[in-house]
Amino acid sequence: MSLPLADQALADGVRRSERRALAKAITLLESTRADHRARADALLDALLPATGGAVRIGLSGVPGVGKSTFIEALGLHLIGQGRRVAVLAVDPSSSVSGGSILGDKTRMEQLSVRDEAFIRPSPAAGTLGGVAEKTREVLLLCEAAGYDVVIVETVGVGQSETAVAGMTDLFVLLQLPNAGDDLQAIKKGVMELADLVVINKADLDPAAATRAQAQITSALRVFGQQGNPAHGAPAPVMQASGLKGEGVAMFWALVMQHVEARRASGALAQRRQRQAQDWLWDLVRHRLLSDFRAHPAVQRVLPATLAEVSAARTAPSVAARRLLQLFESNNS
Amino acid sequence: MSLPLADQALADGVRRSERRALAKAITLLESTRADHRARADALLDALLPATGGAVRIGLSGVPGVGKSTFIEALGLHLIGQGRRVAVLAVDPSSSVSGGSILGDKTRMEQLSVRDEAFIRPSPAAGTLGGVAEKTREVLLLCEAAGYDVVIVETVGVGQSETAVAGMTDLFVLLQLPNAGDDLQAIKKGVMELADLVVINKADLDPAAATRAQAQITSALRVFGQQGNPAHGAPAPVMQASGLKGEGVAMFWALVMQHVEARRASGALAQRRQRQAQDWLWDLVRHRLLSDFRAHPAVQRVLPATLAEVSAARTAPSVAARRLLQLFESNNS
Repeated sequence: MSLPLADQALADGVRRSERRALAKAITLLESTRADHRARADALLDALLPATGGAVRIGLSGVPGVGKSTFIEALGLHLIGQGRRVAVLAVDPSSSVSGGSILGDKTRMEQLSVRDEAFIRPSPAAGTLGGVAEKTREVLLLCEAAGYDVVIVETVGVGQSETAVAGMTDLFVLLQLPNAGDDLQAIKKGVMELADLVVINKADLDPAAATRAQAQITSALRVFGQQGNPAHGAPAPVMQASGLKGEGVAMFWALVMQHVEARRASGALAQRRQRQAQDWLWDLVRHRLLSDFRAHPAVQRVLPATLAEVSAARTAPSVAARRLLQLFESNNS
Repeated sequence: MSLPLADQALADGVRRSERRALAKAITLLESTRADHRARADALLDALLPATGGAVRIGLSGVPGVGKSTFIEALGLHLIGQGRRVAVLAVDPSSSVSGGSILGDKTRMEQLSVRDEAFIRPSPAAGTLGGVAEKTREVLLLCEAAGYDVVIVETVGVGQSETAVAGMTDLFVLLQLPNAGDDLQAIKKGVMELADLVVINKADLDPAAATRAQAQITSALRVFGQQGNPAHGAPAPVMQASGLKGEGVAMFWALVMQHVEARRASGALAQRRQRQAQDWLWDLVRHRLLSDFRAHPAVQRVLPATLAEVSAARTAPSVAARRLLQLFESNNS
């Protein structure tokens, strides 16, 4: 499929890594207009052969763990090595919080002024699914624009970690060393996503950081990463200080070790293929379900049906079959 | 909705806890004939007011951990206290393995001959979704038949643990004490489901069992159960020996403590309501997706589209939108 001339120029601009073209392409992707969406799809298809070249890193941690400072130190380190870095964000709460948590350029003052860096805040639009969707597409555009490393940042709340792990090559969890003996608890389900754990701000309390490192290392050994064929070994746990730039070189070495080992074994290509398929089916499922919910015949009875199920007056399976019958008999 | 006479008699028989009526009702549920399904739905609706009275326990562990022996000891203990016990199984592999893993009555020789016990193997039919679906409905029938405790057993492979945790009030993970220092690794994602961990066969190596108990307790504290408002405290970890019947009374005390605390706080009712809603939406999603995949217009292009996505020649989001357009334009 060939692009209209204007969009051909836009695609060329992205491929030449022109910042303005990249921003314009992202705006097109994020538009809700149907004609924009059609153009964005054609643009994505045209740029797709130029994608896939970046190391995709997902990164999460609770507010206050020092994500921005760590990313800034990492970004400057990578630029120093001649690499170009894009920082994206997935923050479904940004429309509520005003985007204060993530992707805020003012938090990465030194990185954001560099030509070799591209920082894009989380799309402010609604649902996690929608935000993740746009971020996945922006990631592809950044690859087409030749960024060598794409960091997708999220915040340690909700299901956003799963979404970010689902679009990256490795998922990093930042942890705080705790002042006391009580290690900060890791949110349920998040640890199983981690390929690498970083105790950040380790300089603040080296003894606590060392204790936290030991505790998390041991817990990872117990919880399912040992002997997992997809992993081989539990995720490494390391200390760092984003503020002082300590540990950043080691972090990058561990990332490359992870990525190179998986590239050699074929696991990286497999992960990306699986992510691509999951992405397709997530979208299909989401759209089918929203069409179902919006169907007049379903809408009419849905609130009463859900109330019946909640009150245990109708079995959920029976209710589901009745809703589906309504949907299907009014659809054909 | 009133039942036909024969099914009214069947419902009455289930409510009077007649074993033959219960078995017949289950057969009706498991039938794939549409007229049977309609009768089963009406039967479920009629029996629903009599459900909800049991303590629903999910239980998992790797093959060899001693699940049957533990369940038998527990079942006999509960019968000794005047309770009636049903044991169900979710084993999506049973159609392949010949059902050797789960729900096999010969494995629970003493329990299976008791009038107060009802043991039902895993439905042999196909997918996890289908098996879980039937088991959820059989659980409701068992409650209508007045069983006080329903144990749903599964095996430590695949996604079956999530399904079982999604239909029970608490989820128990059985672990082996290890002979060496290497604790058997817990499968990723399973520990976050556990409300209670039992080191079974503790009599075989008491020192190893004590070490395993300490390691798992500490790992649970690190991994997100501490401070989780839904849990309050990390899941308890205890030792037991199903073979010697040791720890069974304590197990039951912990179960009741868990259930009573959550009943008092309203968390139990909330969990069941959420499970009921999830069950409904799972079914709807599953059916919508299978209709989508079976649609001729989709079927025609799906293999080529998936191959394009795998080869990174089409962006997954673009492919999804094209498939959905085909589906919708051929549906209206």
